[in-house]
Amino acid sequence: LDYQHVQVPFEITLWIMLASLAKIGFHLYNKLPSVVPESCLLIFVGLIMGGIIYGLNDRSPPVMDSDIFFLYLLPPIVLDAGYFMPSRPFFENIGTILLYAVVGTIWNVFGIGFSLYGICQVKAFQLQDVSLLHNLLFGSLIAAVDPVAVLAVFEEIHVNEKLHILVFGESLLNDAVTVVLYKLFRSFCEMPTIKSVDVFAGVGKFFVVGLGGVLVGLSFGFTAAFTTRFTKDIRVIEPLFVFLYSYLSYLTAEMFHLSGIVAIISCAMGMKRYVEANISLKSHTTVKYFMKMWSSVSDTLIFIFLGVSTIGENHEWNWPYICFTVIFCLVWRALGVLVLTFFVNRFHVNTITSKDQFIIAYGGLRGAICFSLVFLLPDFHRKKLFIAATTVVILFTVFVQGMTIRPLVDLLAVKRKRESAPTVGEQIHIRFLDHLLAGIEDISGHWGQYYWKDKLEYFNSKYLQKILLREYDQPKSSIVLLYEKLERKHAIELAQAGQLGHGPAHPSFLCSAFLCRSSNRTVITDQKLEDTPNPDVLDNMQEILARNLYRIRRTGPAYNRHTLPGDSEPTERAKEILILRHKSL
Amino acid sequence: LDYQHVQVPFEITLWIMLASLAKIGFHLYNKLPSVVPESCLLIFVGLIMGGIIYGLNDRSPPVMDSDIFFLYLLPPIVLDAGYFMPSRPFFENIGTILLYAVVGTIWNVFGIGFSLYGICQVKAFQLQDVSLLHNLLFGSLIAAVDPVAVLAVFEEIHVNEKLHILVFGESLLNDAVTVVLYKLFRSFCEMPTIKSVDVFAGVGKFFVVGLGGVLVGLSFGFTAAFTTRFTKDIRVIEPLFVFLYSYLSYLTAEMFHLSGIVAIISCAMGMKRYVEANISLKSHTTVKYFMKMWSSVSDTLIFIFLGVSTIGENHEWNWPYICFTVIFCLVWRALGVLVLTFFVNRFHVNTITSKDQFIIAYGGLRGAICFSLVFLLPDFHRKKLFIAATTVVILFTVFVQGMTIRPLVDLLAVKRKRESAPTVGEQIHIRFLDHLLAGIEDISGHWGQYYWKDKLEYFNSKYLQKILLREYDQPKSSIVLLYEKLERKHAIELAQAGQLGHGPAHPSFLCSAFLCRSSNRTVITDQKLEDTPNPDVLDNMQEILARNLYRIRRTGPAYNRHTLPGDSEPTERAKEILILRHKSL
Repeated sequence: LDYQHVQVPFEITLWIMLASLAKIGFHLYNKLPSVVPESCLLIFVGLIMGGIIYGLNDRSPPVMDSDIFFLYLLPPIVLDAGYFMPSRPFFENIGTILLYAVVGTIWNVFGIGFSLYGICQVKAFQLQDVSLLHNLLFGSLIAAVDPVAVLAVFEEIHVNEKLHILVFGESLLNDAVTVVLYKLFRSFCEMPTIKSVDVFAGVGKFFVVGLGGVLVGLSFGFTAAFTTRFTKDIRVIEPLFVFLYSYLSYLTAEMFHLSGIVAIISCAMGMKRYVEANISLKSHTTVKYFMKMWSSVSDTLIFIFLGVSTIGENHEWNWPYICFTVIFCLVWRALGVLVLTFFVNRFHVNTITSKDQFIIAYGGLRGAICFSLVFLLPDFHRKKLFIAATTVVILFTVFVQGMTIRPLVDLLAVKRKRESAPTVGEQIHIRFLDHLLAGIEDISGHWGQYYWKDKLEYFNSKYLQKILLREYDQPKSSIVLLYEKLERKHAIELAQAGQLGHGPAHPSFLCSAFLCRSSNRTVITDQKLEDTPNPDVLDNMQEILARNLYRIRRTGPAYNRHTLPGDSEPTERAKEILILRHKSL
Repeated sequence: LDYQHVQVPFEITLWIMLASLAKIGFHLYNKLPSVVPESCLLIFVGLIMGGIIYGLNDRSPPVMDSDIFFLYLLPPIVLDAGYFMPSRPFFENIGTILLYAVVGTIWNVFGIGFSLYGICQVKAFQLQDVSLLHNLLFGSLIAAVDPVAVLAVFEEIHVNEKLHILVFGESLLNDAVTVVLYKLFRSFCEMPTIKSVDVFAGVGKFFVVGLGGVLVGLSFGFTAAFTTRFTKDIRVIEPLFVFLYSYLSYLTAEMFHLSGIVAIISCAMGMKRYVEANISLKSHTTVKYFMKMWSSVSDTLIFIFLGVSTIGENHEWNWPYICFTVIFCLVWRALGVLVLTFFVNRFHVNTITSKDQFIIAYGGLRGAICFSLVFLLPDFHRKKLFIAATTVVILFTVFVQGMTIRPLVDLLAVKRKRESAPTVGEQIHIRFLDHLLAGIEDISGHWGQYYWKDKLEYFNSKYLQKILLREYDQPKSSIVLLYEKLERKHAIELAQAGQLGHGPAHPSFLCSAFLCRSSNRTVITDQKLEDTPNPDVLDNMQEILARNLYRIRRTGPAYNRHTLPGDSEPTERAKEILILRHKSL
């Protein structure tokens, strides 16, 4: 027997196996997962495992290594989160999310830190030796909402998309703030004196960490997209690049002390649409499936390790400090959400209701990130107290809040996520409205989100797509191919029946014409199937539109929309109409 | 900058990235891969990389770690090989493969070892200090054909299936022999005296290592299949089990000093059909794709590392020893193939032609396994000579033989692999013949491969499938579903046209009836589509068959085929015919 030789891979494989089998075990009893969130069950398994190890060895079980957590377990989960991020609600609410993530987190850090310092001043609690800086440091690690915990709970309760993205987006983007504040306070703790320069440097650093992360992520993401242009002959290693580049973006960001989470999310969101277009359908299935699988395993391992690490002798118990930590975490988060939402609602038509606010505040779960950070603290005499307080806060939020949030959502009748995917009709109208709103914003001179979205789309189709997409043989999804076939068949049938060219000119055709041109890739043009337009009416409409928009273009500020018919020269326009007409047959 | 922190994962990711990019690079120039095998190009890249590292650091670049090779790089390749092993040609030629793998390898080891010892006796070569045992040890590591190198070259030249499986199967199964002989000679080298008991123990150990590997592999494979019975609710982690269990089988085998390669191959071959049936189609795509991807990356890394490790100062050059090693490797292999094939051909109708023999002998490529083994040798004063000789043999076989084998295959007009997959008609007839031959073997009392295959199939359908397959909602492939739909439509059309029951009774229907019953899963029944049988004729045929086979059953020895119509009771038979008739409508 030569166990030494295979120990490392053997034990890793066994841990993963245990995690997977635990997952299967829960799902065998269908009722259990609907009452208790999986994260709680996994922590419970971890606690039992930890108890067994503790009982057998008579010493504390191994604590989850912070390096392993940050380097190997966290990236797959964040990559999965970024890759499958619903980009529309995310960008629609980016302002609110950033406000919660940045201002909200800072508010929480200082709120918790100062009020705990206040508690430490009470002589009866015997906590006078915990300095303000240490309290702030503790606040910086306990304040941040944890994406892993939030994802695990919110995926099961199916609240509406906006609410989900607000909590989840905050939990992802607050990483930049947490990194900066945590490192700032940690270095302050080790400095003899703190100059005001250091504080300003800290504020500046926040932008560097956040925006640097975005930059690193996007550059790796675009490189990944560019690489997949050339994988046509070796489809089999395509999925690899998605993983390699996103992991590299995370590691690079970590190397430069930037926010790795922000980097990997930018990378995933940046590369997704190009990679999807470049790689084969099977590769993409593999990418998606493997990402889900990997993140699911990481997630499971994290919660099990969390449970295992809880058992042991590295805790110092102090009732007042621990209880007040839990209370302050809840109170400051609730206050922060209330205040920030008040400001957010003043500037938005689509306000955040008080029910939503409650769920946002209540959904502020803490998880493994805090836990890893508290173990990374430099050794000082009250570290064990902080570990105990962090453990209690995590267990409280995951167990109490995680288990009661579903009944509360039911009780408050919070708006749920719609079950069905939007129909083609809805998608067409959403796109149509987007273009319309972009035009209106442009004309009115208000540079809102639609304006910027349109600009970005223009930049994308003009430059990025040309560089990043493989130009030859765009992979078409089977549904598009089927649709084309049906369309051709339908056209032939119409031609044979002699009905061609006499159908009513449906106004929605105009809409589909918009869409055809504005998007390079044919996505939704099923209107054509229903009716072949009367070319005269179409021409008329285009003439009217073109003339009017030309006039506006001259009077309006900097109008340069690239997709409208009025944009091209008259001869080009005629040609385009011809092509369009040809296509519709 | 904090490079230390992320060094390990960062460097691993970069190596994989380099390997993948090199692969893309080669395929950008379409002509290159058709002339030079990819393995040569990768070694070349490795040589350049090694040269650069050597030039910059002025010391030998790091050598490929044998542990990393055996624990992390080899398993994915072998798993891929085992999972996609064409089981029919493999089992049809298992005897020949085992003969080549066991007797052939032993022949080579002793042939090379003794003749090199002869060379060492020539005083002019200054090699008298290399003992017989050391030469045999060297022979044991240099004799074995390498699966990674064989796979890399033979996948590109597309020789016929039998030839491919002979070389490839040998390269996989000789691992057991290599492990035993290598460890035997290594322990002999360290022993003061060798008793004859030790030699007999070695012979016994061979069976333990080989059969133990099979046993470990099969038990893990069946456990994996059993586990996937319960993954219905969490499809996303299904692919994981395939990888976890096969890796565990490899590690367990290595732990007990059994043959890891044999274990992982048995595991993959054992679980494949059950896992395929249990997991969803998407999971299976992921499994297949990821396996291919992973093995491709491992393969690339191995060849690059091989190149990198070649550069450096750990070589001792001795012209006669190195040249004679290459010559003996070629000569002994050629002799071995000739002699063994002579015996094989005496017992087979479908003989191995002299062209095939040449390619088998010429395709005996050596690769990374030898290389890792030679570095694992205990330190003694001539280790560097062995390293040099191994490197030269590997480079010679991969470059010279690998590059010339394709032209030689063209020149000799070796029978190629058929390009198209077998048609449904062919498949039906192959299966039909299998059943027929099993029956003939059974009746004639000759227990040949068809008899055993049939027995195994019986055991499988009677016990294994019931334990390992999920019984409810068998996943059906889309083609079966489509076929069922078409069949139903066709039946309705026939019914409407009043043609039902008057079609000609096609003899091949009988065959499809055989198949329907003998296989639980409907695979090939498209004969039904072509013609609906006349039930009377069918009944007649079944009656005749049943009666005749019953008679044979009583006279023949131990006839218990489970699938023939005659097997069931008359009432049951009538019922089955009814069901069959119902189905055919």
